[in-house]
Amino acid sequence: MQVPGSVREAASMYGTAVAIFLVILVAALQGSVPAESPFPYHIPLDPEGTLELSWNVSYVQETVHFQLLVREFKAGVLFGMSDRGELENADLVVLWTNGDSAYFGDAWSDPNGLIHLDSQQDYQLLQAQRTPEGLTLLFKRPFSTCDPRDYLIEDGTVHLVYGILEQPFPSLEAINTSVLQTGLQRVQLLKPNIPTPALPSDMLTMEIRAPDVLVPGQETTYWCYISELPDGFARHHIVMYEPIVTKGNEAIVHHMEIFQCAAEFDSVPRFSGPCDSKMKPDRLNYCRHVLAAWALGAKAFYYPEEAGLAFGGPGSSRFLRLEVHYHNPLKIQGRRDSSGIRLYYTATLRRFNAGIMELGLVYTPVMAVPPQEMAFVLTGYCTDKCTQMALPPSGIHIFASQLHTHLTGRKVVTVLARDGRERQIVNRDDHYSPHFQEIRMLKKVVSVHPGDVLITSCTYNTEDRTLATVGGFGILQEMCVNYVHYYPQTPLELCKSAVDTGFLQKYFHLVNRFNSEEVCTCPQASVPEQFASVPWNSFNRDVLKALYDFAPISMHCNKSSAVRFQGEWSLQPLPEIISKLEEPAPRCPASRGPSSGGPTMVSIGGGKG
Amino acid sequence: MQVPGSVREAASMYGTAVAIFLVILVAALQGSVPAESPFPYHIPLDPEGTLELSWNVSYVQETVHFQLLVREFKAGVLFGMSDRGELENADLVVLWTNGDSAYFGDAWSDPNGLIHLDSQQDYQLLQAQRTPEGLTLLFKRPFSTCDPRDYLIEDGTVHLVYGILEQPFPSLEAINTSVLQTGLQRVQLLKPNIPTPALPSDMLTMEIRAPDVLVPGQETTYWCYISELPDGFARHHIVMYEPIVTKGNEAIVHHMEIFQCAAEFDSVPRFSGPCDSKMKPDRLNYCRHVLAAWALGAKAFYYPEEAGLAFGGPGSSRFLRLEVHYHNPLKIQGRRDSSGIRLYYTATLRRFNAGIMELGLVYTPVMAVPPQEMAFVLTGYCTDKCTQMALPPSGIHIFASQLHTHLTGRKVVTVLARDGRERQIVNRDDHYSPHFQEIRMLKKVVSVHPGDVLITSCTYNTEDRTLATVGGFGILQEMCVNYVHYYPQTPLELCKSAVDTGFLQKYFHLVNRFNSEEVCTCPQASVPEQFASVPWNSFNRDVLKALYDFAPISMHCNKSSAVRFQGEWSLQPLPEIISKLEEPAPRCPASRGPSSGGPTMVSIGGGKG
Repeated sequence: MQVPGSVREAASMYGTAVAIFLVILVAALQGSVPAESPFPYHIPLDPEGTLELSWNVSYVQETVHFQLLVREFKAGVLFGMSDRGELENADLVVLWTNGDSAYFGDAWSDPNGLIHLDSQQDYQLLQAQRTPEGLTLLFKRPFSTCDPRDYLIEDGTVHLVYGILEQPFPSLEAINTSVLQTGLQRVQLLKPNIPTPALPSDMLTMEIRAPDVLVPGQETTYWCYISELPDGFARHHIVMYEPIVTKGNEAIVHHMEIFQCAAEFDSVPRFSGPCDSKMKPDRLNYCRHVLAAWALGAKAFYYPEEAGLAFGGPGSSRFLRLEVHYHNPLKIQGRRDSSGIRLYYTATLRRFNAGIMELGLVYTPVMAVPPQEMAFVLTGYCTDKCTQMALPPSGIHIFASQLHTHLTGRKVVTVLARDGRERQIVNRDDHYSPHFQEIRMLKKVVSVHPGDVLITSCTYNTEDRTLATVGGFGILQEMCVNYVHYYPQTPLELCKSAVDTGFLQKYFHLVNRFNSEEVCTCPQASVPEQFASVPWNSFNRDVLKALYDFAPISMHCNKSSAVRFQGEWSLQPLPEIISKLEEPAPRCPASRGPSSGGPTMVSIGGGKG
Repeated sequence: MQVPGSVREAASMYGTAVAIFLVILVAALQGSVPAESPFPYHIPLDPEGTLELSWNVSYVQETVHFQLLVREFKAGVLFGMSDRGELENADLVVLWTNGDSAYFGDAWSDPNGLIHLDSQQDYQLLQAQRTPEGLTLLFKRPFSTCDPRDYLIEDGTVHLVYGILEQPFPSLEAINTSVLQTGLQRVQLLKPNIPTPALPSDMLTMEIRAPDVLVPGQETTYWCYISELPDGFARHHIVMYEPIVTKGNEAIVHHMEIFQCAAEFDSVPRFSGPCDSKMKPDRLNYCRHVLAAWALGAKAFYYPEEAGLAFGGPGSSRFLRLEVHYHNPLKIQGRRDSSGIRLYYTATLRRFNAGIMELGLVYTPVMAVPPQEMAFVLTGYCTDKCTQMALPPSGIHIFASQLHTHLTGRKVVTVLARDGRERQIVNRDDHYSPHFQEIRMLKKVVSVHPGDVLITSCTYNTEDRTLATVGGFGILQEMCVNYVHYYPQTPLELCKSAVDTGFLQKYFHLVNRFNSEEVCTCPQASVPEQFASVPWNSFNRDVLKALYDFAPISMHCNKSSAVRFQGEWSLQPLPEIISKLEEPAPRCPASRGPSSGGPTMVSIGGGKG
């Protein structure tokens, strides 16, 4: 099976172009295909659905099995992962043909996008099969390979990359990625392995979908649709929900969310149109309470058996806003869509109400990111004092989390600390993308007790900006939020912080003292104006960082966005952390695959195989 | 050869203690012993010389072959490497017996010093042999294994650790390191692979040694001895030197240096005694110009064929100070020693004089390290302006380097930058120890051209200090120096920097503004006093760091320690570095050894084997 010499030798045999039939081959090198329903997760890779990825995760073997279906197979395919979806510095698996033979190999791309064979072959081909649908490749890879060239498959977002080879290439190194159809797809590969909770027997369903939307022929559309609960709809518990995606539109329906409108309004006008439309009624801006959220690649969302999300009944709005994000990079015209979300709910209320709590940073310009930064970190705290006051003695249980930043966010993590020691990651995404904000079930429920501290850190990239990026609601401003889903519901809706404004003014004074240019520190200037006038250099950047790591904070420990718990919440000391969680050392697979060396030859033949 | 089950199974067989004879076994698993004179480097590990290590380095295979001689072998031996010589978090190879059998395994110790078998066996036993001298183990290891538990063998100092097992242990995990005789030895494992330069035919030798020293029965002694060149000794070139270590004292003679005294003095009094003796004449403090330096594990030092170190002749002192560092942790009494250095020199002067240049930081308190820091970095610059002015158009060639800090130094590196881009490491030691300051030949000669920048960074650990550590001559103050040996000699003796004092005063003002406590910033207070009154916290620490990374510097671009080159040297901008050298990704050995799993059983038998 091994190719002893270089691929180029084989390539030298490449002569006349022949019709290539890739026929059934069971390389079956080692391991075997898992038994029934082996691939619970599916995602289209390209907007046309030519490539379809299915996969499963074995946490025992720390391995992912992939099944890649290539419809209309021509001359090969690239598939892999990279930090943020670039085709440079990517960890790749490549099936390519040189006209005579087909090869499968573990490869990597350098900073110039040139492809090289990996010295260690960590992707293992298990099967290559021709089916009526196309060519199916089955292969596996450990989460971690300990090869510094390989991508480490971690919790959180993974940026998958792909490329379609339309013609043979004489060798792997000769593949010119610039002529290929390539792209990226974001997905959570390491889905949690949680048993499906039992559903109540009296369960009802309700479909919230925007009927017959004519999807605009533009790359990005957020579609807003107002739906209404029946008159006199009593209080129920949502126990599960799942996406309804119109057949054929799987690759363009990117994410969907249902928001409940504010209870203050007796009515909300009907609307179905782009969310940025000038025709959109203002009241839709008050429909922000999340009821359900789904993103590409996600499956049904189940509440834990003891909890449900309350909706309906007195004191809650009858109006729901469905938001559908259409991602249409090929600008397909005339596509019709009626996607939405199916809610499963019950009138038999479960023991606990589920709640959503906001952790992270207050939306305020005092938290700012200097321009030209590759990885600047801002941190928001939920302090021991707030959890002490607001949480029940038995604590709360976080079972899901949705991370949120605006455009420059690159990583988000929330850590739980107790008695000054970091104990547990609540949720972490080192490849976070603002374009892929899923509610994710936690692999393990995290219990938060009174007195615990929750620390949420966001990493931003502002290399393309010239002015400071301040905190705020605007899309060009930033946020750092983790919406945690938990039970039992408490009045604490918001546990967030920001640096003390007095200390920030000391910072602007200091900048003035050290720099020849003047920053306006007079009271008339707004904080965004002050930040805009800072002459950014390493000193002003480093001192801002030092300030955020040191200065006291103002806490928002709130029952709702406006009502604070009683107590003194300004000039609070930063939580002191005496021991950090250790970075887990990536476990190298104990026994390596046998294939260190060349690519695997995949048998090729004429029509008869 | 593999033990299928756990070692404990084998251990259960351990019954009556039997006389153990470890007999000849040639495991000869793979690879073979290199041919003639295979081990050019030797070092005793323990002060009694029970363990003797020999080794060689293959840069082609990126592998070190070790030969460990265990005299009076009893029940086993541990050998390995760790960051700074601790037996915790060490990468170990262990030979142990359980009473019945002997085993060899690649192991590691956790933060509590408990020993565990490595899942990946990267140390490979090639031979275990009984000789009249003792038991000899031959094994090899790649520089880098890509196992996160393993030590990465790099250039610079390696802290070797050892332990002697006096009795059998039922299993590897049962080895209690606290009852063993253990210790550490520092050595440069990756010696450069440089062809020996040809020596002149008219070469003469001169031995500089302190005759018949009664080594004090204390752990550390620096012995000073004044020697004298013959009257009218003409100018010569030193072309080579080598250590002369009195037989039997190999383990206690730690390092030796020869310094030339200042030319100002017509005579220097004779002296032979501890360097810290009250009887030591003051004039010995003016004997600081290094002529030769040797440390444990080093071999002969050769000058490049085209250069020699000038000594003798008019304008240079006839007086030499030999300094011998005796390391006598067992406090052996009554040991006599006459060690020293043999100089090889010639009257036929070579084409170039070699010179020594000081890079790094000026000895001034303005450069300070806050207390309680694990890894605080200070950086000294040799700017483009200085090299432009002082170096010949064809540049200079650095062939050796000696790094120097005081007690808190942990890492030192000098990088050469050209046109704002880092180009080359001049010398780097990530496991630097102030107790092991060798002159090291560079693996590759580094050419420095006019306009180049040399950046020297030192990393300090002040976790055991309560006050700031300022720069200066005192042993409790700090230095950051790289003495580079180069040719052709130029008048530039010193190319060092320190932060501008005006900016440092701005820092003290800022500290006052941000903190409730007052730092005396009045002109009467000295800089050490000002640093002593800073209330250290993360902000004051981070801002000091930011200051050093930003503020302009004062350059010492000097012909001798007092005479500067002409020009403006204060308030110089920091050299701008637009691209850094990439950290080399450790290369994982392409083909792994076959032994992943248990330890290797080493055959054991009765007297006849």
